[in-house]
Amino acid sequence: MTNVTLKVEGMSCGHCVSAVEKAVTGAGANGSVDLAAGKVTVSYDEKKVSLDTIKQAIEEQGYDIA
Amino acid sequence: MTNVTLKVEGMSCGHCVSAVEKAVTGAGANGSVDLAAGKVTVSYDEKKVSLDTIKQAIEEQGYDIA
Repeated sequence: MTNVTLKVEGMSCGHCVSAVEKAVTGAGANGSVDLAAGKVTVSYDEKKVSLDTIKQAIEEQGYDIA
Repeated sequence: MTNVTLKVEGMSCGHCVSAVEKAVTGAGANGSVDLAAGKVTVSYDEKKVSLDTIKQAIEEQGYDIA
């Protein structure tokens, strides 16, 4: 598994945490959100999903990745 | 119908708007959220639902009413 921490802008509340986590899960990865820090740590299998796909799923929920 | 505007604290994003509107609708009223102003205008029939019930539904979603 590969672990990457992304800086995600625009997460403001618990609903945002859920939306981002669902996006990451939906892309076939696992995500852990640190709301206060504005960071999302994603854990994924590079053979199954690309980081770009995960990033895109987060962005599609309306959040920007710095 | 009775219209009341409540000052609701803690609404930070579009998900919060949805959560509050659903709470108001679930209580049997109609709600319109002004996110920037932190205000929720509720429209309800006093014969069918009390303002207290509507307020409680919003608070149950984790928001404070000032």
